[in-house]
Amino acid sequence: MDSLEKIRQQAQKIMTDSKGSHDWEHTQRVFAMAVRLAEKEGADTGIVKAAALLHDVARGAEDASGGRVCHAEKGAEMSREILKSLGYDGVQIEKIAHCIEAHRFRNSKEPQTTEAKVIFDADKLDSIGAVGIGRAFLFAGEVGARLHNKGADIEKTKPYTEEDTAYREYMVKLRKVKDRMLTDEGKRIAEERHDFMVKFFERLDKEVDGKL
Amino acid sequence: MDSLEKIRQQAQKIMTDSKGSHDWEHTQRVFAMAVRLAEKEGADTGIVKAAALLHDVARGAEDASGGRVCHAEKGAEMSREILKSLGYDGVQIEKIAHCIEAHRFRNSKEPQTTEAKVIFDADKLDSIGAVGIGRAFLFAGEVGARLHNKGADIEKTKPYTEEDTAYREYMVKLRKVKDRMLTDEGKRIAEERHDFMVKFFERLDKEVDGKL
Repeated sequence: MDSLEKIRQQAQKIMTDSKGSHDWEHTQRVFAMAVRLAEKEGADTGIVKAAALLHDVARGAEDASGGRVCHAEKGAEMSREILKSLGYDGVQIEKIAHCIEAHRFRNSKEPQTTEAKVIFDADKLDSIGAVGIGRAFLFAGEVGARLHNKGADIEKTKPYTEEDTAYREYMVKLRKVKDRMLTDEGKRIAEERHDFMVKFFERLDKEVDGKL
Repeated sequence: MDSLEKIRQQAQKIMTDSKGSHDWEHTQRVFAMAVRLAEKEGADTGIVKAAALLHDVARGAEDASGGRVCHAEKGAEMSREILKSLGYDGVQIEKIAHCIEAHRFRNSKEPQTTEAKVIFDADKLDSIGAVGIGRAFLFAGEVGARLHNKGADIEKTKPYTEEDTAYREYMVKLRKVKDRMLTDEGKRIAEERHDFMVKFFERLDKEVDGKL
């Protein structure tokens, strides 16, 4: 078994209990997108693949701590241990750890390398487009939210309540994602996915009123 | 207050605790669509409006009974009482009750009148298009399902489990809705909404593999 396969197995094992929007399937989608971006941007695919598989290993720790633990920082820490045990050298370990440390949307660490920018973009791309729409409604279902809260003052609605609709998520977060992209290819894909979201929510608005 | 307003208040009160895919907002959407179809199909809008407001009043009773009570039959029964207390005459009451009795997808009673066909179509239209997609993912979130189960044998996956994804709902039910429409205008709207769903799920499939 090559080292990447070993990383995949360890990461998947740690994430067995991760459900919802940051489950193992999210990691698999980020992996596929990161490989695509890495090839286009000329990034080191070995570093990118390892970082993609490991980027959310500390999601469980963050959730269990009620948000006090930062999954990016803690994930980098956990990954250093895993990579060391698999015989990765210090330079590789730090390159991978940097991608994980800097992948968070509200991050204190900015991605410095092409590899870290690729991971950041691949992760954010998974929150928009049809996947983003699906994840937003899925999450709304998990917290018992309504289908839509048309006409509500989005700034005044509350997260993690029945007002926390997919539309709120779109207005507050998802429609801003395209402006945060760091790579050219990420930007291009984000704009295309963004346009689809715009169409979806315009449509939803009209359908709700029986106009389409 | 006119009688329709009184029906609205009573129906909304009964449905206060209805959450999820058949909540009061579903009734409001069905109402808007039913009015639109009624005008196009030359149906009696008075009958249609009353039936739209009342069509799901027995959803709570069906859910509480674990599915033994049929919400269409029971809803017609409850509606007869409500309408009688508001002074509706016997002929009107039976016209409205027929719409409610015959609105179910897996129904034993076929809609016989234009008004009943309009209610049937308006209700089914709310399960497809962007609204249908949103409702399917919302429901998947409620039962703790995954975002997608690409490649799964849809015939073998189980409802009300983490396999009960929006994609399963689409394959098993939603994509067949357009062929069940009973009015011309309903059929036209269903085809347009259907095409959007097809695009959405094709897109979701590609995005999941990082190809779009």
